[in-house]
Amino acid sequence: MTSFARRVSVEQVEEGTELAPKFDADGLIACVTTDAGTGDVLMVGYMNAEALARTIETGEAHYWSRSRRALWRKGATSGLVQRVVEMRIDDDQDAVWLKVEVAGSGASCHVGYRSCFYRSVPLGGPPDATPSLRFEEHEKRFDPKAVYGDAPNPTQL
Amino acid sequence: MTSFARRVSVEQVEEGTELAPKFDADGLIACVTTDAGTGDVLMVGYMNAEALARTIETGEAHYWSRSRRALWRKGATSGLVQRVVEMRIDDDQDAVWLKVEVAGSGASCHVGYRSCFYRSVPLGGPPDATPSLRFEEHEKRFDPKAVYGDAPNPTQL
Repeated sequence: MTSFARRVSVEQVEEGTELAPKFDADGLIACVTTDAGTGDVLMVGYMNAEALARTIETGEAHYWSRSRRALWRKGATSGLVQRVVEMRIDDDQDAVWLKVEVAGSGASCHVGYRSCFYRSVPLGGPPDATPSLRFEEHEKRFDPKAVYGDAPNPTQL
Repeated sequence: MTSFARRVSVEQVEEGTELAPKFDADGLIACVTTDAGTGDVLMVGYMNAEALARTIETGEAHYWSRSRRALWRKGATSGLVQRVVEMRIDDDQDAVWLKVEVAGSGASCHVGYRSCFYRSVPLGGPPDATPSLRFEEHEKRFDPKAVYGDAPNPTQL
């Protein structure tokens, strides 16, 4: 499996060329995934060391599913595979950015929308109010029931 | 202070218009910040309830600094304030996306680069190798020593 460097100094981590990711207490690193064409953020996911290594080796996005507690090859059920065009790592190497092309309907959200970020939050309202969300996508790209059937919904309260 | 709705059902969280964010065990929600002009990911930060509320009320990005354990108005030291053009929330409301315009030199990274994601990770190499990072930005926008002086570096090993 792809191996990662040991983190030995701030200079190595920030200014060096060794991939030395920082996994959190749960063994995970945050991953932002954007559409390589539009630049829109599609989702925020998490990777463990295996998911990160598989993504690097295969060029297809793999995550760690926190709800299912399992390695998750994105698109394994839905067919909506994410082909990685470019991978970036941030300054302290505790976050990854994937630019991807999505297969099929182009959706990345289990609710059926293209992006998981299909609602906006209004800014500058009265400070004691509860903001009311606005839908920025109006049509689902697929029917989640048809694609996922009776699989448990990953959203947790 | 801006108030948030209580999370009562998956349908409310995914399909509703109430802002009902899910903060993790540390009281934080992940935040992806992109450049409103180029679409590039500038940084991944974290917000507590106060940082989220302040961002909504002021239209300027506020985070929770995990290294300093304090509310962090981005740009308070450096002047590199992030003006929020649009805020989005994801399907299960455990991640926020900010599209921002950055003041001054336009940098968002404490190392001096425009984006924290100034290095790429090559894909598809031999599976037993350690990937060697490639710099995608070649010039710093500011001198971190001149801006931050002797303040402790937030990068942790």
